[in-house]
Amino acid sequence: MVAPASVANVGPLFDLAAMAVTAGYDVVEARIVGHSPSGPRVDLAALSEGAPPGPGNTAWRAAMEVLYQASENVRVLLVLRKGVPVGVGLGSSGASAAAAAYAVNLLLGEPFTREQLVRIAGQAERVSAGHPHYDNVAASLLGGLVVLLDRSGPWPVRLPVPPGLRVLLFIPRRQVLKLPPGKPKTAVMREVLPRSVELQKAVDWVEKALALAVGLHSDPVRALAAASHGGPVEEARGSIIPGYWEAKRAALAAGAIAFNISGAGPTLFAIVREGEE
Amino acid sequence: MVAPASVANVGPLFDLAAMAVTAGYDVVEARIVGHSPSGPRVDLAALSEGAPPGPGNTAWRAAMEVLYQASENVRVLLVLRKGVPVGVGLGSSGASAAAAAYAVNLLLGEPFTREQLVRIAGQAERVSAGHPHYDNVAASLLGGLVVLLDRSGPWPVRLPVPPGLRVLLFIPRRQVLKLPPGKPKTAVMREVLPRSVELQKAVDWVEKALALAVGLHSDPVRALAAASHGGPVEEARGSIIPGYWEAKRAALAAGAIAFNISGAGPTLFAIVREGEE
Repeated sequence: MVAPASVANVGPLFDLAAMAVTAGYDVVEARIVGHSPSGPRVDLAALSEGAPPGPGNTAWRAAMEVLYQASENVRVLLVLRKGVPVGVGLGSSGASAAAAAYAVNLLLGEPFTREQLVRIAGQAERVSAGHPHYDNVAASLLGGLVVLLDRSGPWPVRLPVPPGLRVLLFIPRRQVLKLPPGKPKTAVMREVLPRSVELQKAVDWVEKALALAVGLHSDPVRALAAASHGGPVEEARGSIIPGYWEAKRAALAAGAIAFNISGAGPTLFAIVREGEE
Repeated sequence: MVAPASVANVGPLFDLAAMAVTAGYDVVEARIVGHSPSGPRVDLAALSEGAPPGPGNTAWRAAMEVLYQASENVRVLLVLRKGVPVGVGLGSSGASAAAAAYAVNLLLGEPFTREQLVRIAGQAERVSAGHPHYDNVAASLLGGLVVLLDRSGPWPVRLPVPPGLRVLLFIPRRQVLKLPPGKPKTAVMREVLPRSVELQKAVDWVEKALALAVGLHSDPVRALAAASHGGPVEEARGSIIPGYWEAKRAALAAGAIAFNISGAGPTLFAIVREGEE
């Protein structure tokens, strides 16, 4: 199975949305290699350098969850080939979890719906994020632009994707963030967030989130322009990504509809009209 | 012309939405009584006790705006009969502005669209609220549940209203709020709001707003349940409305889908299934 990379947050939809992008695909093959009377078992062959082995890999965790929840006492061999760039804010661990959950579900005759797989794969994100995390897996599993209307649920809903537009990604080739040694990027990018937000800024945030998610039906370009508004999250993170504000100004001046940070960064994205990329 | 009362905020959509309700209607009749070479002129006969006369009335202001923006140098006689209860959080001044804008626009052969009238009537709210205010007028003019995707725009979008549900209103018969003498209710209810919001509470707020506005298409009852979440606004205002939290607990325990404050209160609303009211 193949699962695409994804851009989480999409501006104002912090922790609540992601969109699938063609920047790379994780490929998972799954095969039942025998029974396992003592409970499900997964052997993971991760064919890419740097991919964590065994239980530390979201693909392994997602595969195990599907087997457990379907009560299938089998032994599965999982082969994972990473195509999504790792650690740059493109939902790499989510793509692995999504591909594995989908592949094993298919292998078992599809006991779970696509929405149920979002829950399972999102819980598997625990091994990389420390807590369940549904946005990237939702986009990798459902495609397009997906918003989560209930993070505990989750309640994934696909939004209409307007034609005639392109997402441009700016993926740094080397580590541009100054991270304390031994500290994962995602943790640093969360710690940088402010503890509180002014009331009027919170109302602005709600407004932009609604503009993006509700406005797509009636005025897609005006709606997507709201993706340029990352509120307090962008304010904090943009300030520790070197050159972020200059890049944003330049992109918008050049005609981009929106510009923002992909997930926790440092990858940046722009939404542009087709032919203007 | 007839314009209905409205419930602003609808839980998490603070300053960004309102729904039209049948709790009362303002009726405006408009007639051209002559030319007025020096510029538009409006004579307002407010046939209800307590309705502000002349320029202090949003109906007068809205009528003048329509005439000005259409460059019609005529003298209009406006007769306003209030049916929407005043000062209880049911969008009374908005209903007057909406009815007047609509009536005068009709009189002139409809130079403006309904959306343009939202802007004009919302600006007329200045005379009662101190600043433009589009939520109540949008619901009074467009009907149903309207969300504003851009407060400065405004960008009003009607959401689908699911069948089989009812809005119950609890309108206090006497003044239940303890207001400092001479201070308008709306000002007090704004001053009580916190200056800032914890980041996680702001994200919850965005999530509930999205659940309500986006989820109506796929799961109306789950979406409307989000209207029970008023975030920091409800937290602050609910605490100065006597008995609010007890009333809310009781309504939800009795099976209400949602319960919250209508506009700045003190009117409260519940959303219930038809037959359960």
